Amino acid sequence: METILNIGVIGLGRIGQIHLSALKALKNINITAVSDTSPELARKTAEKNRIPKFYTDYHNVLHQQDIDAVWICSPTSYHMAQVREALENNKYVFCEKPLDKDRTKIQSLINSYPDLSRRLMIGFNRRFDPDFAAAKASIKKIGKPTIIKITSRDPFPPSTEYSRLSGGIYNDMSIHDLDMACFISESDAEQVIAIGSKNYTKDTDTTLITIKFKNGIICNIDNSRKASYGYDQRLEILGDKGMISVENKRVNHLCYYSENSMESSVFEPFFLERYKESYIEEAKAFITSIKEKKEFPSTAEDALKASVLANACEQSLEKQKLIFL
Amino acid sequence: METILNIGVIGLGRIGQIHLSALKALKNINITAVSDTSPELARKTAEKNRIPKFYTDYHNVLHQQDIDAVWICSPTSYHMAQVREALENNKYVFCEKPLDKDRTKIQSLINSYPDLSRRLMIGFNRRFDPDFAAAKASIKKIGKPTIIKITSRDPFPPSTEYSRLSGGIYNDMSIHDLDMACFISESDAEQVIAIGSKNYTKDTDTTLITIKFKNGIICNIDNSRKASYGYDQRLEILGDKGMISVENKRVNHLCYYSENSMESSVFEPFFLERYKESYIEEAKAFITSIKEKKEFPSTAEDALKASVLANACEQSLEKQKLIFL
Amino acid sequence: METILNIGVIGLGRIGQIHLSALKALKNINITAVSDTSPELARKTAEKNRIPKFYTDYHNVLHQQDIDAVWICSPTSYHMAQVREALENNKYVFCEKPLDKDRTKIQSLINSYPDLSRRLMIGFNRRFDPDFAAAKASIKKIGKPTIIKITSRDPFPPSTEYSRLSGGIYNDMSIHDLDMACFISESDAEQVIAIGSKNYTKDTDTTLITIKFKNGIICNIDNSRKASYGYDQRLEILGDKGMISVENKRVNHLCYYSENSMESSVFEPFFLERYKESYIEEAKAFITSIKEKKEFPSTAEDALKASVLANACEQSLEKQKLIFL
Amino acid sequence: METILNIGVIGLGRIGQIHLSALKALKNINITAVSDTSPELARKTAEKNRIPKFYTDYHNVLHQQDIDAVWICSPTSYHMAQVREALENNKYVFCEKPLDKDRTKIQSLINSYPDLSRRLMIGFNRRFDPDFAAAKASIKKIGKPTIIKITSRDPFPPSTEYSRLSGGIYNDMSIHDLDMACFISESDAEQVIAIGSKNYTKDTDTTLITIKFKNGIICNIDNSRKASYGYDQRLEILGDKGMISVENKRVNHLCYYSENSMESSVFEPFFLERYKESYIEEAKAFITSIKEKKEFPSTAEDALKASVLANACEQSLEKQKLIFL
Repeated sequence: METILNIGVIGLGRIGQIHLSALKALKNINITAVSDTSPELARKTAEKNRIPKFYTDYHNVLHQQDIDAVWICSPTSYHMAQVREALENNKYVFCEKPLDKDRTKIQSLINSYPDLSRRLMIGFNRRFDPDFAAAKASIKKIGKPTIIKITSRDPFPPSTEYSRLSGGIYNDMSIHDLDMACFISESDAEQVIAIGSKNYTKDTDTTLITIKFKNGIICNIDNSRKASYGYDQRLEILGDKGMISVENKRVNHLCYYSENSMESSVFEPFFLERYKESYIEEAKAFITSIKEKKEFPSTAEDALKASVLANACEQSLEKQKLIFL
Repeated sequence: METILNIGVIGLGRIGQIHLSALKALKNINITAVSDTSPELARKTAEKNRIPKFYTDYHNVLHQQDIDAVWICSPTSYHMAQVREALENNKYVFCEKPLDKDRTKIQSLINSYPDLSRRLMIGFNRRFDPDFAAAKASIKKIGKPTIIKITSRDPFPPSTEYSRLSGGIYNDMSIHDLDMACFISESDAEQVIAIGSKNYTKDTDTTLITIKFKNGIICNIDNSRKASYGYDQRLEILGDKGMISVENKRVNHLCYYSENSMESSVFEPFFLERYKESYIEEAKAFITSIKEKKEFPSTAEDALKASVLANACEQSLEKQKLIFL
Repeated sequence: METILNIGVIGLGRIGQIHLSALKALKNINITAVSDTSPELARKTAEKNRIPKFYTDYHNVLHQQDIDAVWICSPTSYHMAQVREALENNKYVFCEKPLDKDRTKIQSLINSYPDLSRRLMIGFNRRFDPDFAAAKASIKKIGKPTIIKITSRDPFPPSTEYSRLSGGIYNDMSIHDLDMACFISESDAEQVIAIGSKNYTKDTDTTLITIKFKNGIICNIDNSRKASYGYDQRLEILGDKGMISVENKRVNHLCYYSENSMESSVFEPFFLERYKESYIEEAKAFITSIKEKKEFPSTAEDALKASVLANACEQSLEKQKLIFL
Repeated sequence: METILNIGVIGLGRIGQIHLSALKALKNINITAVSDTSPELARKTAEKNRIPKFYTDYHNVLHQQDIDAVWICSPTSYHMAQVREALENNKYVFCEKPLDKDRTKIQSLINSYPDLSRRLMIGFNRRFDPDFAAAKASIKKIGKPTIIKITSRDPFPPSTEYSRLSGGIYNDMSIHDLDMACFISESDAEQVIAIGSKNYTKDTDTTLITIKFKNGIICNIDNSRKASYGYDQRLEILGDKGMISVENKRVNHLCYYSENSMESSVFEPFFLERYKESYIEEAKAFITSIKEKKEFPSTAEDALKASVLANACEQSLEKQKLIFL
């Protein structure tokens, strides 16, 4: 007999809706309550998804006794308080990244809960992308990894305002790739350098990050706020016995042969389409870890590591020097 | 304001479940009743999908007043009677292919209802596959089409029993490709020849079909009941100004570079995965045609054409001659 | 110590020059004499290639005592007489295809020389293309072959005059593919059907040929006198344990990613570029067979088979029926 | 009427033979003399290539009056003296890279001859590779370039002895990529950082180089002394309007579809095969520049730039810091 997990979702904006869609693809869960500061959004979402309860005050979700786990999809500034309150109420917690902009608060949370890795999972969804996960799973085929290369380019630059609020390219964009680098290397960074340029906005929008890990792996990340040909997400791992690469997904599988060229389709337009499956796999991993009483596959420790690296990139760029961690 | 369409589904076996899944991805419809001869299957399906009514007797679905449209997913031998009864009860009808094994009955149905193309749609799902649909939509890029090539190979041969009941390779497998040939050529066949061999079963399981259409297009279809590397579904259209091809979808986007080769993943394993989106697009097209009061995009006429062609292939193989239509 | 083979070349037109270029890439041969009806062409070719003797009368080449082997690259109508004379003079003979348009003369030649397969090689250069040869060499990987598919399309249609003189699409174009089908299937054809259309010239310029071989393999060849995207040369072999395909070579290895598509380069423009290496490998195979006293890898028997098939295609098209061989 | 250029070649080891082969593909040149310290190698090479004169003393080549241009393919330590002597004897000079290990000597040579760029060409052959040249030629398609990525990996690590004599990975391997970065960026480097690891030898054999150019372009080079899957040579240029990439050449164009994967062939094994055409194009460019009285397309200035960058990489690695140029 399968246990059914009761779930609450806090925050029903874009990322909240993505997680709701992902949750609906899962078996053996019930979404029993949602909350959003907009009463209209809370009501509509509940109705459309046949969710019994909806609130404007998230405390109601956190205090509902029959809820086993909560999804925190609210704005970043609410994350830490909601995570702590959820943990106090004995809920399993899934929190969207970033956990907090202040690394000392993350460290403090880690210190407060010795079993945190079994109670809190952080949303580094790309780890659960079937392609990246398969690359990691087959890494032993290539022997000892020596070079990791990650390409991550957005299709179009953000608005100036978003760009300013986002915390800059390293905390907003590169953080995913920095986590991926840690995920693949299974090591800690010891040297980091970032070089960048401003092509589309007033902030650094194009950057090359180079990392040396303690286990000897060296890694390059290239990020651009704009790639006119579409959302470009690639990974390449060189080892002493071979190479594994993850290529982009094409929107369709047509080829058009004209007099001058063979044209194939561009890539998935943006993260919603490209990483659609990753959100479902992420949710599954959360549920499975709870049921099997295992550590979550992406923890507050991982969030801290990525945050430390993003900060090192910022410092490296500003001070124009190699940063030692 | 959007109209909501009430829908009933008859037959809840494998293909019925596929259509139910597709329907659930649609907006502005309600599935209000289902039926299956197995009371257990009817009940479970209704519960799982929160469908208000379920029956063992399909007449209940056809006579339910508030139902606008029915999906006929029962075994082939029931199709014709259920279609006729549904039409008599003023339902829009979606019927899985084949409509009937007896071409005279299809012709008779067409004769009975002058407006049949606005009332009955036949399930040639591949027409709605995003890749094939995009190929058709961009055909003018290649000028006047001259050669169509269709490859369609199943991953593994059917059981001897299935093979016998299936009506043979032409009515069971090739019929999809024969319809695709008509769909792309937008013409009627005038010459057909089929050549085949028996490699895996007691029936012809490997075949090459060549068709000459009235508009001058020539077409080759190759079918095999077995392709050890997976479900192989390709289309190629040569025109006087270029070529369009539809390639297979890979299961993942990894490449593994070993000492001896570059390995990429195999294709989607079978039709459920490969054509998943086509069932959703097909259902959308059905709903849209009803709402916009248009002819359905795949009709009893199309079913008749494909059936005539499949029969011509059988005759050609048996008599070892070119068949003129 | 290596034996040096002395070689004469008869006919210095386009195909003669191709063979000369190929011969220059070989070791342990001397080109000692050439002939052409044009004294100017004979002289210039000899000078440019530092060939000691040149003639306008080919008899001089055939009677030069120290010549071991001759390359016959003259117009088709001269082939048979020159081949016979060369054989009488105890030369090893390489003759460009077709050996003769009259199949009875080929049969008669075969009857005259019981050891002909060790004395005369016919120029089916595609057998020596590294890609096609590798496909044939690895055929056991795919188990028992069941379907062969050959695509062969010229970049642009020939002039009406060439088209008329060429002997039609089957003797001029398809003959290469018919030989390839025999080469890969290692069997004899028992049924042939050809269907065609006229799109660019007054003759059939687009055709689909279907063959059933005695060993059960079925084969489709598609030919077009025009492919606006370039010279299209593909081969695909399906077996019960896998598939092998030969893809086109691209002119370069660039990809250009624009807003709307990923563009890669077109194919090698025509046979000179696409099959350049095949002429060198063919010449090597000729020399090696002589030195190792083996049968040549493409013989008058092969020429006869291809010619019989081309003729069967013509009959099939004319009489609109399946031809039994 | 075409002028014929008389050419002498000094040094007939591996690289000398490569250049001889390339020269033989050219028209309107005569190789009139060669020299090598091995009398046997000099004689054999002359005989095989029908070259009139051969010497053990290179001075004979440099003083032969009718020679217009010399190819210097001797060991690096002889380059500078031979170049100077050749220039004094009014020969056009092609010199293999590196011109000299001592950058001050290169600078001094540049200072001595104000018209040096029309008299001395340095062998950066990759600039003449058809794919890289085409990438550079089509760069305007992608607007303003923002990121350059270069991958260059050897198939197997060198012997320890070669590794020691080679001057290290930056002067031996990376120097080609550093020149490529300058060639594509058309700018001067202002910041360089190199991070590396030792996986196969006692020296750094795996490295990531990051460069910031004065025009804002940022560039990453990744080098490995070993890539078990073959010689890996790639280039990627991102611009604000698109991307251009150069992919590897495959050894053949076969695909093998097995139950578990689609296998295609590995890449050209090493530089001899991969860059074969580049040596011919390089030689053509040398000849053309002389005939058209233009600057050579790769000069001592370029050699100096690449050498300065290689040295900066060494310093960066040693001192673990970002180097400002």
